[in-house]
Amino acid sequence: MDDRVKTILAGLDLWAGWPSATQRAIVGAALDSFAERGFHGTSLKHIAQGSGLSTAALYVHFASKEELLFALSRRGHALALDLVRKAAAESLDVLVRAFTIWHAEHRTIARVVQYEQGALSAEHREEVAALRRETERVVRERVEHGMAAGVFTVPDARAAAAAVLSLGIDVARWYSPDGRWTPDELADHYADLATRMLTAPAP
Amino acid sequence: MDDRVKTILAGLDLWAGWPSATQRAIVGAALDSFAERGFHGTSLKHIAQGSGLSTAALYVHFASKEELLFALSRRGHALALDLVRKAAAESLDVLVRAFTIWHAEHRTIARVVQYEQGALSAEHREEVAALRRETERVVRERVEHGMAAGVFTVPDARAAAAAVLSLGIDVARWYSPDGRWTPDELADHYADLATRMLTAPAP
Repeated sequence: MDDRVKTILAGLDLWAGWPSATQRAIVGAALDSFAERGFHGTSLKHIAQGSGLSTAALYVHFASKEELLFALSRRGHALALDLVRKAAAESLDVLVRAFTIWHAEHRTIARVVQYEQGALSAEHREEVAALRRETERVVRERVEHGMAAGVFTVPDARAAAAAVLSLGIDVARWYSPDGRWTPDELADHYADLATRMLTAPAP
Repeated sequence: MDDRVKTILAGLDLWAGWPSATQRAIVGAALDSFAERGFHGTSLKHIAQGSGLSTAALYVHFASKEELLFALSRRGHALALDLVRKAAAESLDVLVRAFTIWHAEHRTIARVVQYEQGALSAEHREEVAALRRETERVVRERVEHGMAAGVFTVPDARAAAAAVLSLGIDVARWYSPDGRWTPDELADHYADLATRMLTAPAP
């Protein structure tokens, strides 16, 4: 794996957002249950059982099931933004590689936060949407930078940025470690394909 | 819109799979409820209310909630396969356009069948997986055909086919009619980007 990709990925710890072991147990149990039964199919009882706590003890840390989904969603999106910012400072190639590997390895949380977005409160959904817009902006500016330098030949930075992000995010939907590629091999393929897309002469 | 794309899309009627008005009402209510509350959050009562039937009347048509999800999933995947087969007989450009527009317009069913796949029985999941593998095979063979003709320059048909499918499928996740592009405008962008990706000289 490219050393810059390795460094960026090593700097992202999903669980560092929750300092106490109890909080991590609760958030981990919520993630497992949301992934297995969906947000609406999860009760606080499932989360209590999964984390080895009483339902009453849960409330000390999180006011509701929606708070837990929001904590996961905000954390997942904040990490993706952090990754994209650091990687964009290197190159588009590094960005595609790191983003692909991250989504292959963190496909469970990525799926939950994508699939259950509609269950967030309007205010929380807006906070997450702001993180997504910022991520899109960083990628778009990186594409514009390459266009201005004459390296990228695409006519529309916004559409190209949407495509680059889509390729990486969708990895969380279809990737399986039992399939053909390791995350690193898939990153090689996708970095090559994205570079072709961005640097090709006009068809 | 390209006439070939228009013809292919006009030939796909999601609801034609259910001949009776009652069946359509049930399947439509199930789709709405799965989209709103998730599969696990939906009860047969929700579907009965949404379709204006009694719960007992539902059972005449569908044995369970899972049967309804399977009916939607099989139908959605069968239509996507039909689209891809017809479009691949034309060109990769037509394929990307039709696939993009279809996912933008049918984002609700596309999201439900992607997000709730884990709720299918093992047997039903395998039946849907077979449709997906066949769709992937058709796209891969179309890419291989372009490689053999010397038009497509990508080194790995399987990775390129995964990327082409991913771009289209992920449209269902992020597309909004309130956003920047109509489905047809997005199809223009994505067809251009996919062609660049497939035909670029090696980076």
